[in-house]
Amino acid sequence: MKVPRTSWKKLTETIEYLLVVIMQSPSFVPEPSSELLQRALEVRRAALALGQLTDEQRRQALLAMANALETRETEIVAANAKDLKKSSEDGLAQSLLARLKLNKSKLEEAIEGVRKVALLPDPLYLRQLHRELDDGLVLERVTVPLGVLGVIFEARPDAVIQIASLAIRSGNGAILKGGSEASCTNEVIMRTLKEGLASSEVIPQALTLLTTRKESLGLLRLDGLVDLIIPRGSNELVRFIQDNTRIPVLGHADGICHLYVHSDADLSQALRIALDSKTQYPAACNSIETLLIHKEIAPAFMAKALTAFQAAGVTLIGDDQSQALGVEKSANDDDWKTEYLDLILSVKVVLNLEEALEHIRSYGSRHTEAIATNDLNIAKQFMRSVDSSGVFHNCSTRFADGFRYGFGAEVGISTQTLPPRGPVGLEGLVTYRYLLHGSGQIVDDFSSGSKNFSHADLPL
Amino acid sequence: MKVPRTSWKKLTETIEYLLVVIMQSPSFVPEPSSELLQRALEVRRAALALGQLTDEQRRQALLAMANALETRETEIVAANAKDLKKSSEDGLAQSLLARLKLNKSKLEEAIEGVRKVALLPDPLYLRQLHRELDDGLVLERVTVPLGVLGVIFEARPDAVIQIASLAIRSGNGAILKGGSEASCTNEVIMRTLKEGLASSEVIPQALTLLTTRKESLGLLRLDGLVDLIIPRGSNELVRFIQDNTRIPVLGHADGICHLYVHSDADLSQALRIALDSKTQYPAACNSIETLLIHKEIAPAFMAKALTAFQAAGVTLIGDDQSQALGVEKSANDDDWKTEYLDLILSVKVVLNLEEALEHIRSYGSRHTEAIATNDLNIAKQFMRSVDSSGVFHNCSTRFADGFRYGFGAEVGISTQTLPPRGPVGLEGLVTYRYLLHGSGQIVDDFSSGSKNFSHADLPL
Repeated sequence: MKVPRTSWKKLTETIEYLLVVIMQSPSFVPEPSSELLQRALEVRRAALALGQLTDEQRRQALLAMANALETRETEIVAANAKDLKKSSEDGLAQSLLARLKLNKSKLEEAIEGVRKVALLPDPLYLRQLHRELDDGLVLERVTVPLGVLGVIFEARPDAVIQIASLAIRSGNGAILKGGSEASCTNEVIMRTLKEGLASSEVIPQALTLLTTRKESLGLLRLDGLVDLIIPRGSNELVRFIQDNTRIPVLGHADGICHLYVHSDADLSQALRIALDSKTQYPAACNSIETLLIHKEIAPAFMAKALTAFQAAGVTLIGDDQSQALGVEKSANDDDWKTEYLDLILSVKVVLNLEEALEHIRSYGSRHTEAIATNDLNIAKQFMRSVDSSGVFHNCSTRFADGFRYGFGAEVGISTQTLPPRGPVGLEGLVTYRYLLHGSGQIVDDFSSGSKNFSHADLPL
Repeated sequence: MKVPRTSWKKLTETIEYLLVVIMQSPSFVPEPSSELLQRALEVRRAALALGQLTDEQRRQALLAMANALETRETEIVAANAKDLKKSSEDGLAQSLLARLKLNKSKLEEAIEGVRKVALLPDPLYLRQLHRELDDGLVLERVTVPLGVLGVIFEARPDAVIQIASLAIRSGNGAILKGGSEASCTNEVIMRTLKEGLASSEVIPQALTLLTTRKESLGLLRLDGLVDLIIPRGSNELVRFIQDNTRIPVLGHADGICHLYVHSDADLSQALRIALDSKTQYPAACNSIETLLIHKEIAPAFMAKALTAFQAAGVTLIGDDQSQALGVEKSANDDDWKTEYLDLILSVKVVLNLEEALEHIRSYGSRHTEAIATNDLNIAKQFMRSVDSSGVFHNCSTRFADGFRYGFGAEVGISTQTLPPRGPVGLEGLVTYRYLLHGSGQIVDDFSSGSKNFSHADLPL
């Protein structure tokens, strides 16, 4: 068979185009196997029963999980040693080995965490709305479990313990997929957690562990069986998941946080906040990546800041104006968009509040931004204009955290616009349901005008 | 150039496979044009300013919109006549022509609707959380606008008026895309709404109308500029949008609602509820598609129900047992999954509550389900076990509606699991933001143990 040259060229171009499209396509994610579907169904059924247990029964289940883990401490640590040995032989990076390691003290801390989650107030069956629609027709809105959580995480095996406890406490089943490096540890932990559940009112099938990459891809396709995906890992992992599932994803891709120092800021306070926001834990998503400084305060601020940042080991990179004030390296457009997660800080001198807001609008990731100022009106303007999940005045961006907010435990920080937004605690693992209690009411009576709605709010 | 036959075959097979994949791929949706990006940016900027206006300023803007519409009534009705004429010539179905039609009285009703939305309580800047973290460090969570809504709707031009008023009231910008049949009407309405806004504090660019299909596809790709997509139209439209955007979509695909009549139900009350739930407005998503009847009450219930449903023009289709009781047509597995939106009702006789729950779990769409029973324990069990956005006891499923719930206006009904769920009012068009008011606090003081969080809740 002969193909004319021109059409051959066109054909290869078409194929190249198709390949580009396909590489970006969610269809790359395979359909879940029937075995996975079966397991997910089991989790869903167990979760349904779990959701109907009382606060006390769910608390007791968590304590049973904690007790079981305590009994098997030696076994868990031994399994972890096996994972560590294999990963070390495979040449896993030191930083990842450190995260993978689960020694006795780290394990005991995780067990203590389970007991703390047991003590948190019940997020379920709280009444959010209570309204009489008509005589004997009463509407309630109450919090209920989401159903089944799909959790995908890397390296750290203590995450299994933390997530399982949050899921059970909030009445949700959970399908967990850990990193392959931690597979021995994760399997022993999961078996132990189920042992604990077996001595409680919770059906152990409410928790399950996926072990292969194929299964974790299948998880992304379990719409209707899984209600929320929680990815815990790198930005790349989160983005891949967001792009490849129809299930809602709780997570954030980037944390490009800013501190704006206004012209009237208290110099030493602003510097203290800047240092804490950058250096207290540079790898955290709520650390700042960019410092915006009002031009009037910039010379005085930089005079102090240069030495302070140098002492803290922070490399500064800046725009022309900040370089004129002593910043050594030059920042390009990419720097304003980069989450360094490291001791690097980009610095920009701005004309006024409006330019600072404009910069945040262009480069921020709607995570957390702070302003240092003594002018309450300026602070108010900043807090109204910045559309991030956290907007702070005269304090460190590092406070953006579920524990620091007083939520007791944190599932993660969400930078999506819709709730749950910002640090997400147990409250983010529940939804609500409308319950309508009637005594024979039909809509036709109201449509025909023979009855009218009273819409009277009742006490919560 | 010669291609061997085998590789040619393989090539065509590959292309066929690629085509299947590509057809299911969101990459089919084109990138937004730079002109669309520019307009979306303008909407976003205008929305930002809008979100900072007071309750009274937003109310006044709505009244200005209503007044402008009143001034241009004749012009709007004339534009609609033009659309009607063209669509009629193009052979548009009668039912669609009816939806397209906007006469004086329908327009005046829509204008009255704008004034009603103006009177609804402000959904913005409500404090949901108020907590002291430490001396002089106070956390608030307040409701804020989402930002920009993308609304895609079919036929009905009064939807432009309703959606624009809900968007402005909740401090959001809106990008609207109506059906091409209504293009003349939509354009005059949009121009008029902007005229109204021009005499208020709201920047008219907060609203914009898309007119081509290409633009509406581009809208699906405006992540970062559009915060929520609201599709108003057929199930197919909603599903297409859900599959082709990363932006959160508010909407429901199906409404397969059930009524379960328990063995002890009040016969005549249960029948009244069944008739209302099916016939009061069969095309609504909250109408029932399936009736589940406990086997003990089935003979007595069906004896009454057969004639009542026949009188109401309802065709019954059923399982073997209900056919034995007089239902004429047979239901197959597809029937339990079908949203008829018509005077058709599938009937199934069940052994007990558990079988009813199992059926709902298998075939329901988590929209609204009701139970008819006099046993409060059975009702409670049903309301705890059914995982739908609305679960009702002894009343019609048709009550699942924002107006009937007392929300004043409704954006739509959501069958997703995460909030907003069920009928969505203005409250579903807002999100929240954490504001932290400090006086120089840094995290290091708390990490080092020199300070401790107080976490004391303050009055809302």
